[in-house]
Amino acid sequence: MADRLVVIGGDAAGMTAATNARRGAPGLEIVVLEKGPDTSYSACGIPYVVSGEVDDLLDLVVRTPQEFRDQFNIDVRTRHEVTGIDLDARRVEVRALDQARSLTLGFDLLHVATGARPLRPDLPGIDGPRIHGVQTLADTRSMLDAVGERRCRDVVVVGAGYIGLEMAEAFIRRGARVTMVESGPQPMRTLDPDLGAKVAEAVRRFGVDLRTGVKVEGFGPDVVHTTDGDLHADLTILGLGVRPNSDLAVGAGLAAGAAGAIQVDHRARTDHDGIYAAGDCADAVHMVSHRRVYVALGTVANKTGRVAGINLGGGYATFPGVLGTAVTRLCNVEVARTGLNEREATEAGIEYVVGRAQSTTRAAYYPGAEPLDVKVLAERGTGRLLGGQVVGADRAGKRIDVVATAITAGMTAIEFGDLDLAYAPAVSPIWEPFQLATRDAVSALKAQPT
Amino acid sequence: MADRLVVIGGDAAGMTAATNARRGAPGLEIVVLEKGPDTSYSACGIPYVVSGEVDDLLDLVVRTPQEFRDQFNIDVRTRHEVTGIDLDARRVEVRALDQARSLTLGFDLLHVATGARPLRPDLPGIDGPRIHGVQTLADTRSMLDAVGERRCRDVVVVGAGYIGLEMAEAFIRRGARVTMVESGPQPMRTLDPDLGAKVAEAVRRFGVDLRTGVKVEGFGPDVVHTTDGDLHADLTILGLGVRPNSDLAVGAGLAAGAAGAIQVDHRARTDHDGIYAAGDCADAVHMVSHRRVYVALGTVANKTGRVAGINLGGGYATFPGVLGTAVTRLCNVEVARTGLNEREATEAGIEYVVGRAQSTTRAAYYPGAEPLDVKVLAERGTGRLLGGQVVGADRAGKRIDVVATAITAGMTAIEFGDLDLAYAPAVSPIWEPFQLATRDAVSALKAQPT
Repeated sequence: MADRLVVIGGDAAGMTAATNARRGAPGLEIVVLEKGPDTSYSACGIPYVVSGEVDDLLDLVVRTPQEFRDQFNIDVRTRHEVTGIDLDARRVEVRALDQARSLTLGFDLLHVATGARPLRPDLPGIDGPRIHGVQTLADTRSMLDAVGERRCRDVVVVGAGYIGLEMAEAFIRRGARVTMVESGPQPMRTLDPDLGAKVAEAVRRFGVDLRTGVKVEGFGPDVVHTTDGDLHADLTILGLGVRPNSDLAVGAGLAAGAAGAIQVDHRARTDHDGIYAAGDCADAVHMVSHRRVYVALGTVANKTGRVAGINLGGGYATFPGVLGTAVTRLCNVEVARTGLNEREATEAGIEYVVGRAQSTTRAAYYPGAEPLDVKVLAERGTGRLLGGQVVGADRAGKRIDVVATAITAGMTAIEFGDLDLAYAPAVSPIWEPFQLATRDAVSALKAQPT
Repeated sequence: MADRLVVIGGDAAGMTAATNARRGAPGLEIVVLEKGPDTSYSACGIPYVVSGEVDDLLDLVVRTPQEFRDQFNIDVRTRHEVTGIDLDARRVEVRALDQARSLTLGFDLLHVATGARPLRPDLPGIDGPRIHGVQTLADTRSMLDAVGERRCRDVVVVGAGYIGLEMAEAFIRRGARVTMVESGPQPMRTLDPDLGAKVAEAVRRFGVDLRTGVKVEGFGPDVVHTTDGDLHADLTILGLGVRPNSDLAVGAGLAAGAAGAIQVDHRARTDHDGIYAAGDCADAVHMVSHRRVYVALGTVANKTGRVAGINLGGGYATFPGVLGTAVTRLCNVEVARTGLNEREATEAGIEYVVGRAQSTTRAAYYPGAEPLDVKVLAERGTGRLLGGQVVGADRAGKRIDVVATAITAGMTAIEFGDLDLAYAPAVSPIWEPFQLATRDAVSALKAQPT
């Protein structure tokens, strides 16, 4: 049994790995090095603290460093930044931020869980003090402190992906005027444009001034320069997505995979013996396209962290891959997607048909029934399901899980239509909307020569 | 092409078949004979009319007889009761209730969709005027008329299955005092007793006086005699489940299957050429146990009616079977189940392990997060999923669909744990509760010799 496991990064993929390794290997020394002050928090909850729906950032912390020490005998060192990795000598260089000193720590096993960071495009003024990317609790504290110090009447959000949209809603709920600038034709590029247009409607109905097809050209002290003119901004939020925080590890010699993330295999192993990676700094295999992809989601970080930890602790676990399944609730709608969208299917060289349906969240006569739009993609010829998307009111989003399960199982659109799914007027229309969509796809399959 | 299709029964399984037959066979004469005054209504919505959440019984009607005539050229005759079927002569005897006359109608194709009727146990006083089974809109009108004519302060519901529980809730919402009498140890026998106990807690919390382990011995004019003493009853509702309305068809010579329902094959065909049956009067094959079962649910009636109609119209469609997937929302909880429960697995001779989890409907820190309990069964040895159950607050129920999909696909508990399902704090905890339960089942599988 190895002597010392060093884990770089104390959030989901790091701490899940550490606790699972501890279960498998009670005698292993486990040291976690975390640059920030917090461990194991739900970054997905940050917008709800900003909006005021959740009281305190600390509510998002699942376990504190002290709890990991006490309950799992894990040596968690916060405010310790790893500044170098020596793969041959098997040691890391560490900067103890509060003591302003450096140290060197040897390892037998290494787990890299350094996460992701918000994309910051190389534009004039991007480093201004009122421009915030929101990824960690520390980022958020600094942003909320800035908000507290001055009146934030006008907020500009750059980029209409999940995080941007959630932050836009949060600032509307705080009473701000929010303008969103998105260079694409619709928000949420993980959806196809037709369903993205439904999101745009909801976002505008909620009061966000959403400007699509507009590019940011630069930033002044309280202004965002765009191709559509200048926007006054007391605060600017970057919601342009994230990139893997993998430079240190890849620079040290670990192989890079999709989008520059650390390449890992089905057991979360890098190309170096005894060195693992998981979560937002690592890539994954897409279960439909079988391509290496980069998907930064908390669910994947938890699952891959667990797989890494079991393997690090001497067990055997595998991770089959991702579908990019995601849901969010914003501006009174729920939005979800899984598998391949039209662009992704085309890029993967897969010919497809589309099935669509409009339905309701509950039986049409039941109080609170609201519209929803669903869409599926099925492979031309075989009919196997490739992907699904939904935009609708309360209860719409989690329906995506059925599609994700069916895709994983290799089900066809016809088989999906036969599924025995649950119905009650208060929770569903009698035909599951996704079954109506797959039936539409079956018609399209039959209408096309195969 | 056949000349005349006669359909007996104008609700889901009958009208869905009729419209699908029409699409396939534009020249076919289609006559629907419906005993009552209504067609194609959502019986599942009746409790919400009783409670007042839905304004009017007519809101439950999906399409009126006239709409079927106008839009589909279907000759719908309401208040026409079929009193005899002659399989050899291929004709039905019909009583036109409003004209008080009888007629004979020949058929080339016949579709039997006579539905189900509430169980009425052979007890003293069961035919009293204040004792109502609730199955059709006509039943409900008669019951609501009775309620309107006198003060209904005390309502007794006999039987704590889905319908009984939904009616109990409805009368509480109307301001009545409701006592439920259930002979079993827990409500909802389609669940295992451990989850049934959770339903019992919710029902009692809602204000229903639920008495389990109590048998009804008879009925007086305003009293229900039970093994636990007499209960005053201004109104008594029977919620003891339903039995197939198949006597006429089976008496005429069609083969009977599970529970006395009409036996049908995967194309909804009876054992007689050109004679089909679907919905609550027909049986089905269970996709896990591969046994013939009787499941009376609106989802199945719609699906099997559609299959019958496509085949009747000259097309080709099949129905793979049922899992008994069902959901209801009652007394502020959602309850759902699919596949085999412990009793059913034992009866089918399948050895199983159980996996359980307690979790929340949303991320624990998110406002409105409420507890939920889930349970899965997996086959000992193979690990394939056999069934699932859930009791929890708002949003808990429809999670069952993922389990139903996985069972249909033949997934194992391990494979289920790897599914890429959707997470956002507002709609889910980060680990899908059913994935926690399957992980618990995997531990049980590993702990047992196989």
